[in-house]
This record gives sequence, structure tokens and C-alpha cells, in this order.
Amino acid sequence: MRMPGPAIQDFYDDRAAACYGCGRLNEAGLRLRTWWAPDDSAQTETRFVPRPEHTAMPGYVYGGLVASVLDCSGTGSASLAATRERGRDPRADGAVRFVTGTLEVRFCAPTPLGPELVVRGRIAEVKGRKVTVELTMTADAEIVATGRVIALEAPDAMRAAERTPEPGPPSVE
Amino acid sequence: MRMPGPAIQDFYDDRAAACYGCGRLNEAGLRLRTWWAPDDSAQTETRFVPRPEHTAMPGYVYGGLVASVLDCSGTGSASLAATRERGRDPRADGAVRFVTGTLEVRFCAPTPLGPELVVRGRIAEVKGRKVTVELTMTADAEIVATGRVIALEAPDAMRAAERTPEPGPPSVE
Repeated sequence: MRMPGPAIQDFYDDRAAACYGCGRLNEAGLRLRTWWAPDDSAQTETRFVPRPEHTAMPGYVYGGLVASVLDCSGTGSASLAATRERGRDPRADGAVRFVTGTLEVRFCAPTPLGPELVVRGRIAEVKGRKVTVELTMTADAEIVATGRVIALEAPDAMRAAERTPEPGPPSVE
Repeated sequence: MRMPGPAIQDFYDDRAAACYGCGRLNEAGLRLRTWWAPDDSAQTETRFVPRPEHTAMPGYVYGGLVASVLDCSGTGSASLAATRERGRDPRADGAVRFVTGTLEVRFCAPTPLGPELVVRGRIAEVKGRKVTVELTMTADAEIVATGRVIALEAPDAMRAAERTPEPGPPSVE
């Protein structure tokens, strides 16, 4: 069971789908995907198998990659939560897009390079345009890292940039 | 002035130089390099120009890349500090290698994609095998992110792995 259904990132607007971490249109990126966990609709799930080059010390996963996976798990989880809370149908209405305000990562154990990393996200708070997500990453069912993301709905200037084919000054809406 | 002298990562043992973030031997990686700032010997400096694929929203740098650069700036700064504090000559004795215990990142402003990112590190504390580093990242002289890394000297099992050509169980020394 790698992918139990569509992920929230599948519904990001094309102009918001370039993210190195979770953009489906970024061919060089990680293409992380986040969905509601099939066994617990209050938790999100993100899965990723690190590439051979994502090494720290030989045999272990690079901490920046762990942080990157937690980061996009956090914004994806925030998008899932906000989309659900507002009663939006992501297929019809698209997904609300979030960026990271703060990211905290605690590395609990060296992360073995090889196993799939499984991140579970718990929505701690939805408050206006701010969503707080608590995250736990496991490898071979052992907790290797925990994280906390405060995600903020993408600001107007960024969303304007999404709609602007050529770079230009942020528009005032 | 891109690189005022050797970086601490130049003195990592070959087996500790595979890191995706800062390993000089990881051809797919970021090859981050950290040195004492030429204008302030109490601060460290790390510089990196993001690649075109390191995008978040179009025109901005992906948060995971920001976190990755801060992460390796933190462990590199810790290595600089511990090497200095112990009176080691990294050319002769090699550098003490650290891993990340905790990483905190606050994204202060959207990071423009294009300019070189400059990270300054301040050594907040050296306590045994633990070093705390406060970090500030600027782009075009504007602060885009701040961070805090608690770095831990690489544990024996990892250092044993560095010396073991083939994967095996951690050795007890």
C-alpha cells in the first residue's frame, strides 16, 4: 500500500506545483505526496524512499533531507486540514496552499538509508490562515525524528506570483 | 570574495565526507562549505547559490533547501568551534565531525531565488560533545531566515561506520 488515493499536492494549482519538495511538476524534486491516513482520518501520511545520494555518514540519511520531508509533510498536512475545515472539494475548488512559517526538527535516532520513511501528521491547531502540525517520522517502524511545523496560507504576493508568467513586482490586490 | 580560505569540511575524513549537504565527495550534493568569517573570527560563514530547481513558489527558494543549508552550517560551525576549542590543527589532526540533534528554522521572509544565500553562525555554547549554534541567513543583505542547531559529536557507532568499508553491526570500542 504505497498510495491509498489522491494526495493533496495533486490539487495544487499548476503555478503552485513547482516546489522542489512536493511539486508534481518539479522533475528534479522529491515529489512528496501527503494524504489522510487510511487507518486514521485525523492523521496525515507522507511516504518517501530516500535516494542513494541522500546520505549523511555512510548508511544514514542526511538530516537536511529529513527536515525537507517534514517541512513538506507539514505544509501538505496544513493544506489537507484547511481544505477539510472550509468544506472545499479539492477536485473542484483546488487546494489551499501553505508555506512554512517555522520548522522544528528533533533527530531522535540515526535514520537508516534504505527503508521507506513514513511521516504521520497530527493537526494541532487551525487558526485562521495558520495551521500547526505535529509530525513523527519512522523508518522500519522506529521513530527517527519528530517535527513541528507552523504553516501559513501562502501570502497574496506569492499567490500573485503564481499567476504571473513572467517575474514582476508583487501586485496589490 | 567567494571563499576566503579552506573550509572545515575540507578536513573531514573521507568516510565522513559523503554528506549530501556538505560532503566534498558527494557529487550530487550541495557541497556546502563553512569557515570562520574573514571580518569576524567569532562568527562562521557559509555561502550557497540555490539551483534553479530549488524553487518553492516560482521565484522563491524552497524551505527545505533553506533548512538544509542551515543544518550543515550548524554542524560545520560546531566542528569549527570544537576544533578551535581543543587546540587541534585540522590540517594535521582532521576535524571533529558533528551531527544534528535539533534544528529550528524561522522563515522570516520569502527567500528570492537567484541571489547567493549567506549564513552567519554564532557559537552560543560549547559543552562537552554538544555545541549550540545560532544562525542567520541573508539574501541580498535581507534576513530571510534564522535558525538554531544543537549539534552533537558523531557517536561512536557512526564513527565506526565511517571506518568500516562494508556495512556491519556497530562495533563496541
